[in-house]
Amino acid sequence: MADLPIAAIIRIAKQNGADRVGSDAAAALVQKTEEYIATIAKEATKLASHAGRKTIKAEDIEMACSSS
Amino acid sequence: MADLPIAAIIRIAKQNGADRVGSDAAAALVQKTEEYIATIAKEATKLASHAGRKTIKAEDIEMACSSS
Repeated sequence: MADLPIAAIIRIAKQNGADRVGSDAAAALVQKTEEYIATIAKEATKLASHAGRKTIKAEDIEMACSSS
Repeated sequence: MADLPIAAIIRIAKQNGADRVGSDAAAALVQKTEEYIATIAKEATKLASHAGRKTIKAEDIEMACSSS
């Protein structure tokens, strides 16, 4: 996939205490983040469908996150 | 924070089954994703420190994800 910019993810990590982030760690963090988005998107899609909608709303994202 | 590009996150969501993503849902997904990265970064920083390192390695990310 590799759709997310590494620089932005490293910036968020550093804002949260990370001092130095190895390039292998940065790549792993990008991959895990993309997996997280995929998991939430799949669950939110199911929840929207369950509510009779094709459009995902914020409430689907919230519920998907609380069950993941 | 708002460091991650919304377009990239919506693209990943659509690659994982999302049909239409409301703008409120997109904003919520960006926020949840940033919170996820923050949580992993904090845990990985602790794990690297615990291993006597200042540099976060991929193994710290992996362990942080498995415990989150």
